[in-house]
Parts: sequence; C-alpha cells; structure tokens
Amino acid sequence: MEFPDEVDYVSGKTRIFGIVGHPIEQVRSPEMFTAEFRRRGRDAILVPLHVLPDEFDTVLPQLLRVQNLGGLVFTIPYKARACAFADVLGEQGRAVGAINALARSPDGRWHADIFDGLGCVEAFRRRDIPFAGKRVMLLGAGGAGSAIAVAVGRERPAALRIFDVDAERATALGLKVARASPGLDVQAGAPATEGVDILLNASPVGMLGDARLPIDVATLPRRLVVFDAIVKPERTPLLALAEACGCTTVFGLEMMRGQISRMVDFFLV
Amino acid sequence: MEFPDEVDYVSGKTRIFGIVGHPIEQVRSPEMFTAEFRRRGRDAILVPLHVLPDEFDTVLPQLLRVQNLGGLVFTIPYKARACAFADVLGEQGRAVGAINALARSPDGRWHADIFDGLGCVEAFRRRDIPFAGKRVMLLGAGGAGSAIAVAVGRERPAALRIFDVDAERATALGLKVARASPGLDVQAGAPATEGVDILLNASPVGMLGDARLPIDVATLPRRLVVFDAIVKPERTPLLALAEACGCTTVFGLEMMRGQISRMVDFFLV
Repeated sequence: MEFPDEVDYVSGKTRIFGIVGHPIEQVRSPEMFTAEFRRRGRDAILVPLHVLPDEFDTVLPQLLRVQNLGGLVFTIPYKARACAFADVLGEQGRAVGAINALARSPDGRWHADIFDGLGCVEAFRRRDIPFAGKRVMLLGAGGAGSAIAVAVGRERPAALRIFDVDAERATALGLKVARASPGLDVQAGAPATEGVDILLNASPVGMLGDARLPIDVATLPRRLVVFDAIVKPERTPLLALAEACGCTTVFGLEMMRGQISRMVDFFLV
Repeated sequence: MEFPDEVDYVSGKTRIFGIVGHPIEQVRSPEMFTAEFRRRGRDAILVPLHVLPDEFDTVLPQLLRVQNLGGLVFTIPYKARACAFADVLGEQGRAVGAINALARSPDGRWHADIFDGLGCVEAFRRRDIPFAGKRVMLLGAGGAGSAIAVAVGRERPAALRIFDVDAERATALGLKVARASPGLDVQAGAPATEGVDILLNASPVGMLGDARLPIDVATLPRRLVVFDAIVKPERTPLLALAEACGCTTVFGLEMMRGQISRMVDFFLV
C-alpha cells in the first residue's frame, strides 16, 4: 500500500517558535529563522502569529502555555508591550525598555531581551571593524535606533552622537545610553560627518521607494564606515553614495543575519 | 551580497493550522495535512500544539484569537471537550458528541465536526464498496468506533451490530446511532462473522506489538470485507488473517487518507 504523502519539515516532535506582530504578512523571520534552525540541525520551525492590539494582553499569556512553544519573536507594534511577559529581562532589553525575543528556559521561566542592537554590533565584529575608540554618529532614535545606541554604547566608542527629527526623542535616548554605559561621551545633536568615524542610519529615510538621504550631504569622507539598518532596498541611497565615495559599507542584511544568529543562540539554550 | 538562507515552506503569509493534543509527539497530522495543503497549492502548514489538560479550557479560546489560524485538529484527550468551542456543530459531531476539527469560516465563526467515520466511509467509496444494504459488524465503541458507527449508519446498511468489551458502551452507542439514523436495524451484541458482509475493527486490539485478533476465530469467510482502523501496524493480525482467507481488505491508512482529504476540504472552505 502506498503511504500518503508527507512533508519532511514538520512532525509531532517539531519545536514551535512564533513571530507575533500586527500586521504579520510582511515579516521575514519565518523563512530566515527556520533556515537557521535547520542549518544547526534542529527540528524547529518559526511561524507567523497575527495577534490584534486589543487582544495582545489576553492572548499572550495563554500562548505561552503551549508546552512545545520554545520562544517568540516580537515585531511592530509589540516590542515594548512584550516586556510584561518576561520573567528575566536581559541587559539590553532593560536599557532599551523593549524586547524582541522571549525564550522558554529549561526551568520554565521566560527569558527576554532585544537583539537589534546586538545584531548591528555582530555585523561589525564579523567585518573586523571595532567600535571601541571610534566616534559614532547615529541617525534615528526610534525602536531600532534605541537598541543600536544601547548596544554600540556598550562597545566603548570614543563618542556617540544621536540625531532624530524629534529632538526630544534623541535626548531621551542619549540619557538611556548614558545610564547603560556610565562615563560614555554621548550627546544628541545635528547630523554630521565631520569628526565622525562610523555613520549609522537607523531612521526610515531611504526605505523602499524613498530616494532621500538621511543626512544632507553631497559627498562622504572616504575614511567613513557607513552602515544602514534598512533591509529593503539592500543598497539604500545612503549606501550607494557611500560606495561612490569609496567608504566602507555595512548592509542591513548583515545586521539581520547577525541578529538571527544571536537570537537562535538565545532560543536554543 | 549573499542573502541569508531561507526556507521556502513558511513565510509571513502562510496560513497556520494546528493539532492540539496531550501528549503530542506521536501525532502524524503535521506531515500529512501539510502535504495535502501543498498538493492543493495552498500556502499553509499544520503544526503540533501541546496543551495540558488543566489548561485546555483557558488556552483554547485565546488560541482561536490568533488571526491567521485557519483551524485546529483535536486528538486524544480533547475530542469531546473541544465541542465547547464550536459555533456551528456538524451533523456527525452532534451525533457522536465529539469533534476532531474546528475551522474558521469566512464570517469568523468556528465550524466543527468529526471526520473519523467519514474517513472510513470515504475509504470504502474509493474502493467502490457500498455499505447500503450490507450487514455490518463493528468491533469497538470508543472514540473512533463511535464516529464510524454514526457515519456508517447514515449509509443505510441492512443492519449494524456493535460489540465492545464494555457492553454498556456498545448499547449506548447503539442508541446514538439509532437516533442519528431512525429506522436502522442497529443492536449491540457479541462479535460474529455469520450473517455479516462487512467486518470493521475500531478496537485497539492488534495495535503495535499486540498479536491478538479482535474476534475469536480461526478463519474468516471469503465473502467478508474486512477493515481495520489501526494504522500501526499497517497489516494488523486481523487483516493478515483476512488476506490469508481470501477476503477483501481495507486498511486504516485508507481511512486516514480519506479523512485528511475531507478535513482539508472542511478547512479550506
């Protein structure tokens, strides 16, 4: 007798992970995390879970009771609200006030942290570009920018300058970073490339069809290392200008790859 | 830049289905349903969801609020308890008092039914063996047996006789079937092959390492059609004897395949 067809990537033994967001269709985590689990030889899958904002606080605690759920990734708009479900909150998450990963530990407690910033640091580490001693300019103090500022701040740069179109938001982030990394020269201020070694864009300027630069310049100094957190397009207007000017460029996909690697480490403890 | 590896079988757009049970590792639905979804060209996956008995009633309603969840399959020990979550309960489910599928309909209501029995009927239909006018003997009045009795009863057999080691259970099932199919000649009684055209085993006797027969006979009449609901082993002691005696045999896997096909129809309305 012929046996009914079966797929080989999910079974009763597969460990389940999820990404929780609203909306959910655009997320890239399911295909990327699942590939990373497989690369490590683990029988695990990450699936999209669309939870509505009005139901998040009641759905989440019950979702966590599914026994073979190994962890959750959080995306917009839940990174701050998800903190409420952490039994143990990591250093980055505490400093940023948001998380993007919740992992079930062997003792049943939920460990939480945010990895956007660590992903950026990991991308630079893989390129052998240290932040230590460097003067860093960060554009954008939103969710991704906050995590990047906190993580980069821990790397002991010579100085960290933060710009945001919302000046108060930049100042507030500067205070967070100063608290997390006492003694660090951190300030909010206008975008600049003068006296800067590493330029980080964490603002949405340049995303998708947006042809603008996040900083109003015609050229960039060749010595500058330029990073853009944007993933689509891969080569943003800022990175294209940086390449044209002979700068070293670090791509958003490198941060995403670094982040997924760190998060899978976190999930598989 | 090389893009991080991705798998091609799950993304943010994938519709999620689950099987809820306790324990969960032994279930076969994830690989089989997912294969059936793919065969039909649908971007959907069915994952195992291990929910504890003490938490079932609080977890379930919140799980149903995950917006991209298309449906759930229920297995041991939840087929009866799951009825509580049906907005619309199908005819089979009503007659049996248990469900194994809950499907989100386009209007947001949850439709429920049980398909074990329909899967058995479907398997016979695919073999062109009608139940109509036949004298049927059913062994086993548990969960699977109940669903099979109700579904077969609707096919207008000449008579349906039900045996269970628990005589009260057999009698109770006889009453359920009589209610669902008024006028049908249905009774509880001892196992027999005399005056029987179709012998159905829905008892666990013969499962896995169990070498016993569910009916105490040395041979089977050649004219008999013999079905066994057991999937492992594929060729049960009863089916092996039936083959040796020249009977027509119908396998548990055929029922499972028929059931999955009917359930995927139900899920994809």
